[in-house]
Amino acid sequence: MTQTSSSRLRVRYAETDQMGIAYHGNYFAWFEVGRTDFLRQLGLTYRELEAQGLRLPVIEAKAHFLRPALYDDVLDVFTHLSALGGASMTFDYTIAREGSQAALATGSTSHAAVDPSGRPRRLPPEVRRLLA
Amino acid sequence: MTQTSSSRLRVRYAETDQMGIAYHGNYFAWFEVGRTDFLRQLGLTYRELEAQGLRLPVIEAKAHFLRPALYDDVLDVFTHLSALGGASMTFDYTIAREGSQAALATGSTSHAAVDPSGRPRRLPPEVRRLLA
Amino acid sequence: MTQTSSSRLRVRYAETDQMGIAYHGNYFAWFEVGRTDFLRQLGLTYRELEAQGLRLPVIEAKAHFLRPALYDDVLDVFTHLSALGGASMTFDYTIAREGSQAALATGSTSHAAVDPSGRPRRLPPEVRRLLA
Amino acid sequence: MTQTSSSRLRVRYAETDQMGIAYHGNYFAWFEVGRTDFLRQLGLTYRELEAQGLRLPVIEAKAHFLRPALYDDVLDVFTHLSALGGASMTFDYTIAREGSQAALATGSTSHAAVDPSGRPRRLPPEVRRLLA
Repeated sequence: MTQTSSSRLRVRYAETDQMGIAYHGNYFAWFEVGRTDFLRQLGLTYRELEAQGLRLPVIEAKAHFLRPALYDDVLDVFTHLSALGGASMTFDYTIAREGSQAALATGSTSHAAVDPSGRPRRLPPEVRRLLA
Repeated sequence: MTQTSSSRLRVRYAETDQMGIAYHGNYFAWFEVGRTDFLRQLGLTYRELEAQGLRLPVIEAKAHFLRPALYDDVLDVFTHLSALGGASMTFDYTIAREGSQAALATGSTSHAAVDPSGRPRRLPPEVRRLLA
Repeated sequence: MTQTSSSRLRVRYAETDQMGIAYHGNYFAWFEVGRTDFLRQLGLTYRELEAQGLRLPVIEAKAHFLRPALYDDVLDVFTHLSALGGASMTFDYTIAREGSQAALATGSTSHAAVDPSGRPRRLPPEVRRLLA
Repeated sequence: MTQTSSSRLRVRYAETDQMGIAYHGNYFAWFEVGRTDFLRQLGLTYRELEAQGLRLPVIEAKAHFLRPALYDDVLDVFTHLSALGGASMTFDYTIAREGSQAALATGSTSHAAVDPSGRPRRLPPEVRRLLA
């Protein structure tokens, strides 16, 4: 649980709003980019987990917005796993401009493990082993 | 094929960009609101069509943007069916501000009828009858 | 601070994801619809507040997702003001299906009052009076 | 006008819909990624053009969707300038999966050159020189 992954993206014009900054709702898609890469770095692709009948819907999401992200900014999303249960997990995120230490935003998402029909299921042992 | 439906929506802050206008890509979601309501007005819900194994993916989309739509504007989306084939259909759209005759945008989307695995299929007779 | 506003919207296909439910990030745009209507009900339009040099960027956002919202669902967003400071405010939200008591999601957003260049400013007295 | 730029992106879960494919409206944001990179490759950043008082709103957009893009697919957006006027320009796009020759989608966007208040203006000579 001590690993951190790093994902790079560039703010799209589509992601700005008329305040001239990235719209806050878009950070949750950026967090998603972060956890997809986090899992990939461990050898797991969420695409394959879904193909194996696992879904990880978000049951809680939060973010603090400290400084605005601007159009064309290059951002790094740092992701780590902060909690792992038998049928749940929580990721923490920090977003900063490329080469900067100052966080633009921090946040977290908690996920339930469910089957394709939405019923809770335990995480497969090999997934738990890779995440633990 | 002579019916036109009308859908009302209000431009969200999330839909603006830093030019201070609604981002052009969002108009395609507004067109989708328009055709969903068009079908509903005929007694068809796209949700039910999907449940019956029909999908109508977009194979072509276009739009002309004549005047900008602004945050909090109330818009009307006028939709009609402009072409109906055995396994395809095309919708035309006009978007205007509430109470205005001046189009902000016009556009169209063409759709293929496919089954859940993406293979072309003919439109069900009862769907064709309602649309014709 | 005891008023609650109610906003109605319908889940768009664009807002679903391949899990077959509304993508969690979209709820924050729905919350925005809720607070825009809350302010309007008090006689304030956020569009005019911006024209007068006030911005209310989101500094914190969170949501709990209890039950999925589905394509074409008609949703009600219930909004109220839960905290009001000299240069900040917090809104709370509950989203439910039309005619249902069961919340699909709850959440909150906190906002700073800033001027067009992003510097903190106090809320105008007439805005505070209407909100208090 | 013979240059082509290439941009790489990965399909986000947020960009899928319940048909299990990328929602068609998102391709227009991908086209935007493409033309931003195209301009950057020529030494122009759209961010700076805006700072210099130039806006390039989309006045026409179209796309053909040939094959679906799927979650987690790595896509290449190929962009080139297909027309250049005194106060307008048109970009053409092709999107393909990484390492594939088969287009998933093609499209184009036409842009007017306007000043910050939306009035038409001629493209600056240095911009025309770089684009021509």
